[in-house]
Amino acid sequence: MDSAAQARYDLISENLAEVLNPEIIEKILAEGRNPRIYWGTATTGRPHTGYFVPAIKLAQLLAAGCDVVVLLADIHGFLDNLKAPLELVESRAKYYAKVITAILESVGVPTEKLEFILGSSYQKSPDYVMDVYRMASLVSEHDAKKAGAEIVKQSDNAPLSGLLYPILQVLDEEHLKVDAQLGGVDQRKLFVAAKEWLPKLGYRERAHLINPMVAGLSGGKMSSSVQDSKIDLLDSAESISKKIRKAESAPKVVEGNGIVALVEYILLPAAALRGRKEFRVERRDAEPLIYTDIKQLHDDYMNDVLTPQLLKPAVAEGLVSLMAPIQAAYQASPEWQEITAKAYPPEIAPKKQKKVKDKGSRYPGAPKEQSKPEGEETQAAQ
Amino acid sequence: MDSAAQARYDLISENLAEVLNPEIIEKILAEGRNPRIYWGTATTGRPHTGYFVPAIKLAQLLAAGCDVVVLLADIHGFLDNLKAPLELVESRAKYYAKVITAILESVGVPTEKLEFILGSSYQKSPDYVMDVYRMASLVSEHDAKKAGAEIVKQSDNAPLSGLLYPILQVLDEEHLKVDAQLGGVDQRKLFVAAKEWLPKLGYRERAHLINPMVAGLSGGKMSSSVQDSKIDLLDSAESISKKIRKAESAPKVVEGNGIVALVEYILLPAAALRGRKEFRVERRDAEPLIYTDIKQLHDDYMNDVLTPQLLKPAVAEGLVSLMAPIQAAYQASPEWQEITAKAYPPEIAPKKQKKVKDKGSRYPGAPKEQSKPEGEETQAAQ
Repeated sequence: MDSAAQARYDLISENLAEVLNPEIIEKILAEGRNPRIYWGTATTGRPHTGYFVPAIKLAQLLAAGCDVVVLLADIHGFLDNLKAPLELVESRAKYYAKVITAILESVGVPTEKLEFILGSSYQKSPDYVMDVYRMASLVSEHDAKKAGAEIVKQSDNAPLSGLLYPILQVLDEEHLKVDAQLGGVDQRKLFVAAKEWLPKLGYRERAHLINPMVAGLSGGKMSSSVQDSKIDLLDSAESISKKIRKAESAPKVVEGNGIVALVEYILLPAAALRGRKEFRVERRDAEPLIYTDIKQLHDDYMNDVLTPQLLKPAVAEGLVSLMAPIQAAYQASPEWQEITAKAYPPEIAPKKQKKVKDKGSRYPGAPKEQSKPEGEETQAAQ
Repeated sequence: MDSAAQARYDLISENLAEVLNPEIIEKILAEGRNPRIYWGTATTGRPHTGYFVPAIKLAQLLAAGCDVVVLLADIHGFLDNLKAPLELVESRAKYYAKVITAILESVGVPTEKLEFILGSSYQKSPDYVMDVYRMASLVSEHDAKKAGAEIVKQSDNAPLSGLLYPILQVLDEEHLKVDAQLGGVDQRKLFVAAKEWLPKLGYRERAHLINPMVAGLSGGKMSSSVQDSKIDLLDSAESISKKIRKAESAPKVVEGNGIVALVEYILLPAAALRGRKEFRVERRDAEPLIYTDIKQLHDDYMNDVLTPQLLKPAVAEGLVSLMAPIQAAYQASPEWQEITAKAYPPEIAPKKQKKVKDKGSRYPGAPKEQSKPEGEETQAAQ
């Protein structure tokens, strides 16, 4: 790769926990072409600030000249709540598209190369379905279970769909004609399976970009039942500040610290995308602390130069400023407001809220909360 | 039900091991309507005389004025042998349709109310597929496994399709718009599941007609690897006689006796359909034995009045005479001959032969032989 290609690759792989088969992407870049990369999200709940983690990565991919596909997995959203009226499911998919676009625009990334595809637009087609049948006859129950171990509920009484989803997600790579898939660490086993399964049907192997686990605001899991632990993308500035203020943030500990993670995975990369990689912490009686690198911030935090009391207002301000254009876009769009009213009607909102996952979970019923011990980190990105 | 309706019901239920929810059929008959009933067969191997058992039942259903649907499960046939060229799979489905029609015509039943439907004609449609996804999210892995326990291979390493097939077969009842499904005793658990599963999607419960297990010619299992234990529908008269002569038929034992079963489930009902329910056994030095009821024959056989030596030539003659019109139809049809050549090309025939199941098995890879102890009865009907 020449230096331009290398720079593109660096941006594509920045902040990732792992890249499987990087050579697939490197080769495309070396040839001066644009990798086509997809990220899927089940349109199940309501996106919150956790969505910034994959969204910032998508923004980096766009900035690196990739063709980016966001799969709005509406069929999965529908299956997760079979009693929901179809209009609600459709509105929710539209809401997700609005939010993701707004996040990308908020960091100033051009979105012409961003494509939203509804799962229902191809996952019911004869070609796709024959591939589901074919794959199901080539993949063992054991292997399907292993692939989905961290993303679907696994028990005898779990619905059969949990074993089917890994097959669908792998086939999506072929049917969306992408070169790579982006997902969280919890998708790793599935990604490894994808490498094996696609060639069984004569399809080519894809690369996989793996986002790291990101701590929730409450220091432990970002539980949807604890309202304060997640920030809705349409929350007011006051509400954002209050939630950040109340969030856990142990002094001198960066590991599993949700506030520090917000800087590392959202604010600092967002600033870089906006043209100036910098995170400022104002101090009353001293010069501001200015970080252009997360390493410096980690060091200061561990030494208690940067205390939680100093960090929190700076993070709150950063988030408020990042979300301001999103909220302005929402206020300016009667269409978006109407979609929101249909997607999250007040009467069923409380029940819906319980279903919201903290991590943009790819599939309905993802049982992260049940399968992990209390207090363990969860992932803000898929 | 009036007596006409009762007579129709008697013919529909004759020789069956069990009818689940007979009231569904009785109500339709009481209203003077025609029940619509389906039987499915995966177009995997090559139909042999075992096919007479479900075929005779289909003939009785037609004679009782039912609308009969034969589902030619070509997708299942395809999935069972993914390497087979598509033309072979298509030709095989055509071959099955030819053979089944010929069997029905050989017993003189009108076939206007017989309909063949290819699985591929609707099992890839968006409506069907959404139902597969919906059902998979409402049925547990445990329940899918239980439903398929006797029809699909069950192990960790078995393909996932084995858990999907029960869902497809249950949905077929709705999508074929039938009132009942016909199948063998090995389908019973699946039929019980169908009663539970269809209402989950808001569909009505269907009745189920269950054919008994029928012993193979070799007295034990009708293994496809033992050529002599099954009779191809296009076998010559000499070959038929030879196979019957060599078949096991313990004197005085009717239980599990494949030769006696041929009379009970094929020859006697076929004679009834042709207008004269009678089975004749010629004797060299005595009057012929004439049976109009299987009970009389069982009694004589157990008392050794009817010896295997007397019975076998009569059965051979009965089969030869039953198959003569089938073979004549085949000889008269260049189209059918061409289909046969394409469906069972000589070069791959030996391998294909191994795949032939003895029971018109509904689904690919049905592991009857592996899961049962040696020598146990198997079923000629699905």
